[in-house]
Amino acid sequence: MNQKLREDAEQIWTRAIRAVLPDEAVRRALTDAVFPGRVFLIAAGKAAWQMANAALQCLSRPVDGGIVITKEGHVKGELPPPIVCREGGHPVPDARSFLATEEALDLLAHARLTETDTVLFLLSGGGSALFEKPLVPVEVLLDVTRQLLACGADIEEMNTIRKRLSAVKGGRFAQFCEPASIFQIVLSDIVGDPLDLIASGPACPDQTTCEEALEIARRYRLELPGCAWERLREEPPKALSNVRTEITGSVRELCRAASAVCTELGYEPILLTDCLTCQAREAGAFLASVVRTHARNGKRLAFLAGGETVVRLTGTGKGGRNQELVLAAAQGIAGIMNAAIFSVGSDGTDGPTDAAGGYVDGETADTLQEYGVDIRHVLEANDAYHALERCGGLIITGPTGTNVNDLSVALIHAV
Amino acid sequence: MNQKLREDAEQIWTRAIRAVLPDEAVRRALTDAVFPGRVFLIAAGKAAWQMANAALQCLSRPVDGGIVITKEGHVKGELPPPIVCREGGHPVPDARSFLATEEALDLLAHARLTETDTVLFLLSGGGSALFEKPLVPVEVLLDVTRQLLACGADIEEMNTIRKRLSAVKGGRFAQFCEPASIFQIVLSDIVGDPLDLIASGPACPDQTTCEEALEIARRYRLELPGCAWERLREEPPKALSNVRTEITGSVRELCRAASAVCTELGYEPILLTDCLTCQAREAGAFLASVVRTHARNGKRLAFLAGGETVVRLTGTGKGGRNQELVLAAAQGIAGIMNAAIFSVGSDGTDGPTDAAGGYVDGETADTLQEYGVDIRHVLEANDAYHALERCGGLIITGPTGTNVNDLSVALIHAV
Repeated sequence: MNQKLREDAEQIWTRAIRAVLPDEAVRRALTDAVFPGRVFLIAAGKAAWQMANAALQCLSRPVDGGIVITKEGHVKGELPPPIVCREGGHPVPDARSFLATEEALDLLAHARLTETDTVLFLLSGGGSALFEKPLVPVEVLLDVTRQLLACGADIEEMNTIRKRLSAVKGGRFAQFCEPASIFQIVLSDIVGDPLDLIASGPACPDQTTCEEALEIARRYRLELPGCAWERLREEPPKALSNVRTEITGSVRELCRAASAVCTELGYEPILLTDCLTCQAREAGAFLASVVRTHARNGKRLAFLAGGETVVRLTGTGKGGRNQELVLAAAQGIAGIMNAAIFSVGSDGTDGPTDAAGGYVDGETADTLQEYGVDIRHVLEANDAYHALERCGGLIITGPTGTNVNDLSVALIHAV
Repeated sequence: MNQKLREDAEQIWTRAIRAVLPDEAVRRALTDAVFPGRVFLIAAGKAAWQMANAALQCLSRPVDGGIVITKEGHVKGELPPPIVCREGGHPVPDARSFLATEEALDLLAHARLTETDTVLFLLSGGGSALFEKPLVPVEVLLDVTRQLLACGADIEEMNTIRKRLSAVKGGRFAQFCEPASIFQIVLSDIVGDPLDLIASGPACPDQTTCEEALEIARRYRLELPGCAWERLREEPPKALSNVRTEITGSVRELCRAASAVCTELGYEPILLTDCLTCQAREAGAFLASVVRTHARNGKRLAFLAGGETVVRLTGTGKGGRNQELVLAAAQGIAGIMNAAIFSVGSDGTDGPTDAAGGYVDGETADTLQEYGVDIRHVLEANDAYHALERCGGLIITGPTGTNVNDLSVALIHAV
């Protein structure tokens, strides 16, 4: 393994992610905020703890109640009372998610909110699974989510369906909080920052239609019971007057930060895209072909792509979209000893694994071949994790506390 | 439709293709050639007629025999005797291909070649189907080819199999011509110019192994009779001493020429890759995400990608990889009125259609929706041709006389 490339790569992902951590962003958003009455803090998502912690530190007053709902392992310590911290299932919601959400709604219901009260709603990626009160039996909701994940539906399509099966999504949470004001700070995890889709938009007017939801259900041949079909036909609120929103953090900022680090390390950064949404392994093949073309230029180049690719499920192995992307790329850059490609989820979790992503270079394919690992077979089995594990190609960061999509970078050293 | 973008695009593909036409290249290769004895001209491939025509014009002497084997519609007129022109099936070889190849071999056999004779062998893309003498029953060969096309095997894999079922591929034609010299001029149609794969390398030592061929056959679960399995176990020649080779024309030159036209038209050209090999529709999605990121830069940009993508067959419609690529891209650039993406096969034939490729812009998706055309369904049906036909998005050039892969360009106008 080319140690210099590996070290540079590590610098890039570490510092780019650090630059988009939510603390500073939340602080900025709260600077001029005025709260005439009581304040209730509801934080949901993979960055919920970090956002809540930052908010509590910079509010000049105590809050009147609050709850943090985040993913397992993402609570980094106690928060001052009355805030309670809860963990729930992700990416598939579980009983803990539902209980915690019920607890949040109970808290607000018992408070008998008035017009002068504010719900400080801190939202980040993962909120879809973590902040949820289903309108259909839990088994149905879980089954629909499983079906959507398995058929390769994108996040927009998943949320168009899921918000209609939920009592809190698609603006329904904001409706529930009326007549109180909602001040929501949103850490965007969806490419292009479409507010109604981030965590399925609990405090955002729904911009999809029942027609679209039904079309998606039919296209993917979802198997739904009658009660679910009925819910798909009910429109969430299309307008909300009690909500103020600040969007902060995004894959754009992640790419910008990574570019800056590349420049500092002596690479000429070339941003390809900050809204990549194609299939993971094909994105890897594309990036590899970019490397093959430019590897003999005699320049130090860094090609950057931000976004969120999709895994096409063809097997039952262990992996994630970033791991699959780089493993596909490893084939394409085999033998190019002055190049490396890494891809990393800014939240530190790539698929249902403990890795944030993967790193490969021109040696990776050969190394794997020596171990008897056939990259094609591994990709067909969606088992990138175990292949990368064998060749030291896993990127492990632990939960980062932010979630602004993925960063993929192809590094080329001058030869 | 944005007429300015469309006109610019047409300039780019027309002039880029013109710059890689074989005439000048063949002439250059023949300038210093000396032929001590007789000369026999054998030209095979989609550019065979044009290459032969150029060779005859610049040879300072008559040839002693010759044959041109090209695709239907690619013979542009009579050539001076003794040259005869034949047309054969492509991409699937047919009886005409086999007869014409037999005729070529007969011509050389009857000539009783000696060491002072030269076979001037002009090879271009399509040669695999057009220059063929099967070692297995024709039905078996056709069936194997069909299976390989249908399972999405790439051209390297196809040729590794097919050369073993052939009496002329994998260096076997050069072996047949011994003791005469072979002077081959090759118009490269495979990304990276691997000589043993272009038209399956009739005059190139085989660099694949039987082991690889068997692995491919097993991986794609090819259904083969016993005689074919036997042939897969026979190694073609690994060394040839009677061959001199000139490679000319390539996708690199195509991209270089396109970049020059872009610059002239006021676009800043950015070459992404000249060896793209991923799935067509995913490449389209990737290019569209590049456009979405840069469309608001206020610059006139042209992102170029050369190579040859692969179509994943999921339906039975009409189309080709270039048409599929742009149709997938049309979704991604919907509403971006200052951008267009085109993709074109330099040979003028995209898949089994009369179109060379396709052109889409920010209006295309809306236009198709108005016609009731669902792009996703069209892609699933592999039916891009009919969708593009409806919105004026087909690129029709007719046979160009060259074949150096595909060119895909994303154009962005300043707004």
